[in-house]
Parts: sequence; structure tokens; C-alpha cells
Amino acid sequence: MSTADIGLIGLGVMGANLALNIAEKGFRIAVYNRTTARTREFVEAAGSLADRIVPCETLEELRDAIKPPRPIILMVAAGAAVDQQIEGLKPLLQQDDIIIDAGNANFHDTRRHMNELAGTGLQFIGMGVSGGEEGARHGPSIMVGGPEASYRRIEPVLDAIAARYKGEACQAWVGPDGAGHFVKTIHNGIEYADMQMIAEIYGVLRDGYGLSAGEIAPIFAEWNRGRLNSYLIEITAHVLSATDSVSGEPLVDMILDRAGQKGTGRWSAIESQHLSVPATTIESAVAARSLSAMKTERQLTEERFGASARGTLAPLSPEKLEMLEQALFAGKIIAYTQGFAVMAAASREFGWNTPLGTVARIWRAGCIIRSQFLGEIAKALDVATDTQNLLLTELFSGYIETSHPHLRRLVAESALAGLPVPSLGAALAHFDQLRRGTGTANLIQAQRDFFGAHGFERIDGDGTHHGNWLPLAGSEAES
Amino acid sequence: MSTADIGLIGLGVMGANLALNIAEKGFRIAVYNRTTARTREFVEAAGSLADRIVPCETLEELRDAIKPPRPIILMVAAGAAVDQQIEGLKPLLQQDDIIIDAGNANFHDTRRHMNELAGTGLQFIGMGVSGGEEGARHGPSIMVGGPEASYRRIEPVLDAIAARYKGEACQAWVGPDGAGHFVKTIHNGIEYADMQMIAEIYGVLRDGYGLSAGEIAPIFAEWNRGRLNSYLIEITAHVLSATDSVSGEPLVDMILDRAGQKGTGRWSAIESQHLSVPATTIESAVAARSLSAMKTERQLTEERFGASARGTLAPLSPEKLEMLEQALFAGKIIAYTQGFAVMAAASREFGWNTPLGTVARIWRAGCIIRSQFLGEIAKALDVATDTQNLLLTELFSGYIETSHPHLRRLVAESALAGLPVPSLGAALAHFDQLRRGTGTANLIQAQRDFFGAHGFERIDGDGTHHGNWLPLAGSEAES
Repeated sequence: MSTADIGLIGLGVMGANLALNIAEKGFRIAVYNRTTARTREFVEAAGSLADRIVPCETLEELRDAIKPPRPIILMVAAGAAVDQQIEGLKPLLQQDDIIIDAGNANFHDTRRHMNELAGTGLQFIGMGVSGGEEGARHGPSIMVGGPEASYRRIEPVLDAIAARYKGEACQAWVGPDGAGHFVKTIHNGIEYADMQMIAEIYGVLRDGYGLSAGEIAPIFAEWNRGRLNSYLIEITAHVLSATDSVSGEPLVDMILDRAGQKGTGRWSAIESQHLSVPATTIESAVAARSLSAMKTERQLTEERFGASARGTLAPLSPEKLEMLEQALFAGKIIAYTQGFAVMAAASREFGWNTPLGTVARIWRAGCIIRSQFLGEIAKALDVATDTQNLLLTELFSGYIETSHPHLRRLVAESALAGLPVPSLGAALAHFDQLRRGTGTANLIQAQRDFFGAHGFERIDGDGTHHGNWLPLAGSEAES
Repeated sequence: MSTADIGLIGLGVMGANLALNIAEKGFRIAVYNRTTARTREFVEAAGSLADRIVPCETLEELRDAIKPPRPIILMVAAGAAVDQQIEGLKPLLQQDDIIIDAGNANFHDTRRHMNELAGTGLQFIGMGVSGGEEGARHGPSIMVGGPEASYRRIEPVLDAIAARYKGEACQAWVGPDGAGHFVKTIHNGIEYADMQMIAEIYGVLRDGYGLSAGEIAPIFAEWNRGRLNSYLIEITAHVLSATDSVSGEPLVDMILDRAGQKGTGRWSAIESQHLSVPATTIESAVAARSLSAMKTERQLTEERFGASARGTLAPLSPEKLEMLEQALFAGKIIAYTQGFAVMAAASREFGWNTPLGTVARIWRAGCIIRSQFLGEIAKALDVATDTQNLLLTELFSGYIETSHPHLRRLVAESALAGLPVPSLGAALAHFDQLRRGTGTANLIQAQRDFFGAHGFERIDGDGTHHGNWLPLAGSEAES
């Protein structure tokens, strides 16, 4: 008896919560987990929702439980586990059944799965789901990539379970092929940059102005009521307020400064490199996490050079507070500008036609980088869909005009005080490079032509030219 | 009649010059080019060296001309052409013959070739050759990766043709596997950072201090006599002095500020990401080249925001000049620190046991980044072979102690003046992060644990912990 609307494989934290969300919205869902005990446990804990859950002990049972064409969500660890599940499902499924990888896959893997399934009649969807455990249960942001017809088949379910922003569901089809997982990867890359910039400002407040966690928390809380309003700013205030039950100290001070990372920040950097699109705010955020992991090396380096003295920038005046807030806002605008430019380039490269305004719109709720700011990005991109450069939209060029002087003051002050602001500094450098119609690459081209005859373009003519360089005198004899 | 010591395929600029270099050193070399006309032309132009050159019209002829076991250098475009040549040679060669890819290959391709040839009895070497046309003809820097026994077979030739630094040949075996091409890739990545930092200082002098090319040239010439002494600084002075025969203007001012790039800068960044080693000075240099290519976008952005006013930092005092020189020196130290750390990590990851001191030593002459500085790196790494961090060696920690205050003043001044210093800024941020035993990743870990239950370590205990976070109040209702 095929009664289920959809199936789901993998009842880990994310899968279980997503399944409950789907059942709660009135759909019948067939579930399968490699270990059957987990499936039973899950159904037992599902309470009144258990009525809409069909537990299956084999993949055949799962297949038979779902109404064709069958959508089956995989929520298993990215990589080998996805490969194995697809192999297991392939012989069991039929024409037009849809395998949906909802994990944090690398979009190259997603493309590979699509190629491997081409001609089998089976459909494949790569779907980014953001918002963690909480999002999965009560409303994630969902970025779907793959055949549009397959998306339409599952759209009612996604529409029902997604986060809502002023009534609009935060789910969308963002293009064929690996577009969904690519967009999710860049979402996470932007998240890296966003979090890093917040941490940099926290560092300036803590080490430069000598404030305690308890003193910094209300600053972020206040900022959350203004232009920086966002989930990440909100939780920053929140976690800075928490007290450690063991020591009675602020909990954040008891946490080791060694950050973990999974693959998506790195993937964002790598794909940006492949696309030749600068993503220096993301790259420096990834590097900062790598540096954070080198605790011993940092301690040795501090021993050798000394860290900057704590509190040298104090006291914190209202002007300085505004500088910090505006600097963070400017940095954030530039990080998002880079991230959206990467997505625009991928869309062109792969022919996805990704609707960037829609991407911003479905990030307004449910996901980790959710903010009112994304609503403004959506509006800006709707008006100027042809620009890849958010900074050139009317709204954001106005914002950056007001805020970049603060960013430069912050970068200068931090440089002099020995306070690291890698991502905010990268943001400023990006802006200052972008706004130079005449840069310094003419020198680089001269050097390259000199030593490698690479040729250069001239400002007054077409084509490739070579300098009639004189040989170097003297000093080169040795080499 | 097998009389040749070595063979070479591909008589383009690099191949032809390398062949002449080999013949000149007294070796008999068999050469082959896809188009036979080129082979004839090459031999005709070889003059007295033609006696030692055996022109071959087919690969069979080439094979028969070389004494076994036969070393055959491929100097063809990286990528598909290398694949094709290997396929062509495979059926012709015998046990222990050595195919040597001397192009700018991606080391992943080199590893692939080695795997594909494993079991055939044929040997494969991936060899980085730096120094451009001039280096190939009169002495390049040569970085060899592959089976050590095969390297020993060709060592006499390499030793004879390589650049010399105070009598020492700038060639070495840097490890098995893809080590040679990896080291060459990072050489180029460092070259990107080195050139970018020079361009940044040039930009500050030109746009900040309002100097002409003719005024900037002697500054670099002067620096070339001091701690910055290097080929790149030397040619910077040189190209800044050149006059355009068409306009009578400094040639550098007639060159379009749009820099080209081949793959190696990008590969350096990508491999650093794979290895989780910060290479932000290289990443920002690659990004700067990408930004340079976006000329129209830069012009539009300048129109919108205006560039900084030219000459606002003038006049250029002796103190400022010292700041600029020392800042460039500090930036360079940190760029090389990052580059060597990437090679150290790759060596560990792939089990290459790459001798980093030797790498520095064979870069002292022949290659584009040659400098006295590399001799100092070699000495520092010889003394402290266990450190991956050049900054912690006695010599370089002394240098950076003196120079970093200048770097911070430069970054601060440039930030305020709107002059982009992306790679120098990245260098400073790297240093300031490294010398903080206690960074700000504790906040990032708190955030990650709050939204994703990722867990954190505590400063006072082992294991992974979770915060007993209170839920957010109120504002999250919407999402």
C-alpha cells in the first residue's frame, strides 16, 4: 500500500527533525534508517505525529510505501554515505522517482550523481538545507537544484516545511544541476565571513577597549536593533551573556579559542578561485579558523613578540562605538557583495540562471545568516538584476558611502594597535581596489613581459604588445 | 645508433632554450617536435651546438637515438598535450626509461601520470623549471619530484644546466611523487604575492605620494642594494625607467592595468585551502589580479565613489621611505612564511620529506623570486628544520621585530588614504593573529555550539562540551 507522500533516509539529528517537520505539516512520510532500532526509537518519540510516519525496515519497504513518482530525501553524511545510498536505491526505483540529497554535499558530487543517473529515468535533486537542528524541525531555508519538473513535484512539501518570512516560504528552485548545493556552499562561506567579522569586532572590544564579555553583550544587543539586525548578531549578544555554571565566569571566556570547520568554507574559497572571483573576506575567515587551530604556534609566537597591551584603545566613546558598528556594517556589505558575485559567476559558468534576488529572499529566515539586510539585498537585486556588484546598486552604494570611512578608521586603528582584523581588512582592500579605475597591475604586466614575454595591452591601442626592454646591467651575472 | 644522453620533446621557446643549454654543456640531445619544420629550423639556428643535437622526425627515431635507460624531457603545454605525449611514448619505451614532464603541471596530474605508469616499468618525473626563456637558456632553477633513482640518472645533466649561486647548482630532488611540481606551484604563488606587494608599494608612491615612474624607479634601485635585494626589485626599477618610444612617456604608464594569470597562483591558493594552511598573502594577490581584469567594473565604481586624491600623502620624507621599505620587507617575510608553511604541510600530508632549506637554496638563482633573502631562509631552515614557522627562527624573528611596526604604519596610513594594500594588509593580519596566544575563536565556537550543537573545548578541561544555552527570547518567532 503506497500511502506516503515522500520518503526519508537517515534519522540522525537533521533527518529526524526534518521528518517530524514534514509529518507535522500533514504529509505522510516513510522513513528508513540503516539501524532499525533508531527507526523504532524515532517513531516512538514522535508522539501524535507517529500516525503520519511509516517506519520501514528495508529499502524495498520504503519504496513500496511511497506513492510514485517517489520523492526520497537522503539526509546522511555527505560523501561516501550518499554514494552508497544512491547505489542501494538505483535498482529499486522506477522511472521519474526522485532522489533528493539534502546533506551538505559538494556540488561537484551532486553533478556527478546527476550524470551517473542520466538515462536511468531516475531524477536527482541536490538540496541545501540551512538552519541546523532547530531549522530542520520548525522551518529551514531550502535551496533546491536539479530538474525543475522534479522540484515542482516536491514543492508543496517544501513550501509547507520551510521557514517563513512575513508569510513567504523560504524555499526556492535556484537552478538546474548542482545549483542548490552551490548556493548552500556560498551561504556557508558568507556565514564564515559574517562570523569572523563579528569575532574581529569582539576582539577589538575585548582586547583593544578592555571590555568584559558582560560589557560587550549589550553592545551587540543594541546593534541588533539597528542596521546590523540579524540572527548572528542576536546570538552573539546572547552567548556573550551566558555564565559558566562551573566557574561562575562568562562562559565565552571558558571556551578554548580553537574553531572547528567543516568543508563548506574551504569549498567556497576553492570555487571562487576556480571562477576567478575575489572572495577574500571568505578566504581570510577560513584562514582565521585555521590559525585558531594552531594554538601552540600562536602561544610560541606571542611569547616571542608579545601581544598588544589590553585596553590601550580605551575608553570607548559613543563615536568609537559608531565607528565599530558602521565598520562591521561596511565589512558585511562587502562580504555579501563578494559572495553574491561568486554565485553570479557560477550561474554564468554553468548556465544555471540562478535568481539571485530569490536567493537573498529565501535567506531572510530559517538559515544562520538570516537578517533584514537580506531583504534589502533582494530588493536591490530585483531592481538591478544585471549587476553582479551589489556595491553599485543604489541602496548599497548609499550604505557603503556612509560606512566605509568608519571601516577605514577601524582598520587603521587596529593595525596600529596590533589587533587582527583580517576579514574586515580584506573587505576594505576589496573596496579600495574596486574603486580605482586605474590600478597598479600595469607594473605587474611590465614585470611579466620583462621576465616572461607575456605581453601587455596598451591604454592607447588594441592588441598585445611587448616592451623593447633593455637587458639588465651587471648584477645578473651571478645567476 | 643510440648516442644521445637525453631526449627532449617540444621545441617551443622554453624547450628550444633548454635543449641549447643542454647541448652547450656537452651532452648529446635528441630532439623531436610535432611539426618537423620547427625541428629543422631549430637545428639550423643552433650554430656550433648543432653537432650535439640529433633531430628526430618520429618518436621511434627519438627513442632509438637515446642511450637506455632513456631520459626524455617533455616541454609541451601543461594538460592535454602532456597526456597525449605520454600515450604516444608508452608503447615505444622500455623498462627504466624516464619520462620527465618539465612543464608547469598541476601536481595532481603528475601524480596521476605516476599512478598510470606504475607497473609498466617506465619511470615518471615531474620537474619544475623556473626562470623563463632566459633561465632555460642560461641556467634555470630546477625542482625535481619523482623516484630518487631516476633523478640520480639525470642529475649530471641537471647539475650542468642549472643556474649557479656562488658555484652551487640550483637544482635538487625535492621529494618523490608530485613534490617537484608542487614546489614549483608554490614558487609561483609566492611570486604572485611578492609582485603584488611591490605593486602595492608602487601604488602608494604613485597615488599617495604623487610620484612619477621616473621618480619611483631610483627608489627601487636603491632598495635593491639593501635587504630587499632581489631580481623582482631590480626589474621593478628597470621597467619603471623605460620610456615608451611612441609617446615619450614612461612605458609603464602606457600599459593597461589589467594583469594576466595562468593557473599556478590559483593552484597555490586551492592547495593551501586543501591543506588548511593560511596563504592569505597569495590569495589576496590572486584576487588583485582578478580585480585588475574587471576594468569596467572598477571604472564604474570609481565614478560612483571617487578614488582618493592623488598626492595626499606627500611629501615623501626619509622616514616615510624607510617605512615603505621596511613594510615591504615585513610583508615579504610573511608571504614567504606562508608559502614555506604550505610546502611543509604538503610534505607531511604526502610523505615527501621535502628539504625546505634546499628548496630555498635552489631558488637563490635562476628563478623569478631569486634573492639574497632566500639564502637567509635556507640558513634559518637548516638550523631549525623542525619549525614550519619561519617567523619563529632567530634570524627572521629579529627581522620582523624591527620591520612590523613599519608595516602597521603603512597599512594604517593606506587604509585612511584609500590606497589598497591587500597583500600587505593580509600579511599584517596574519602576523597579528599568530602572535595572539588567545584569539577570538572562542566566540565563534560559542556561536557554532549555540546554533549547530557543534561543541567546544574548554580552557580548563579535556573533551568536547556543550553550552547549556537558554533559548532566544521573542524576536525569533518570525523565522
